[in-house]
Amino acid sequence: MGTYMDVHHGMKGITSQQLNQAHQADLAIEKEEGVHFEHAWADPESGTVYCLSTGPSPEAVQRVHERTGHAADEIHEVTLSV
Amino acid sequence: MGTYMDVHHGMKGITSQQLNQAHQADLAIEKEEGVHFEHAWADPESGTVYCLSTGPSPEAVQRVHERTGHAADEIHEVTLSV
Repeated sequence: MGTYMDVHHGMKGITSQQLNQAHQADLAIEKEEGVHFEHAWADPESGTVYCLSTGPSPEAVQRVHERTGHAADEIHEVTLSV
Repeated sequence: MGTYMDVHHGMKGITSQQLNQAHQADLAIEKEEGVHFEHAWADPESGTVYCLSTGPSPEAVQRVHERTGHAADEIHEVTLSV
């Protein structure tokens, strides 16, 4: 299992409701890929969304995001944290 | 008070000890700027570090990072979270 920070660009103007809906859509299917999305943070001004997750691989994380219609632009395995 | 995600690039090969030392250096002076660094995550392979903080402004967050010798490359106010 790894921990991942993925980044979505181009989300300018994202609302709290849209962020919640996207996150809930991920949560609804994440178990099928062995992934868990822990948190998401959004900056509507620059259109950037960060998602922190755990899962078996970056591909598994991306599959959840793809299936819910919002593929990530970057996925980084964050092997260190403090 | 805002919540911020800042990003550092060019940190390839960062070790757990280096991340801890950098975070401790920030914690040691953060109160002087009214900032609190909650978490940091690092991907040594791509050299990317993400820091989550709260504080009065992005400038205050950057001042802490500058004073400890590791200015952020990007600081995003994340007004939404889930």
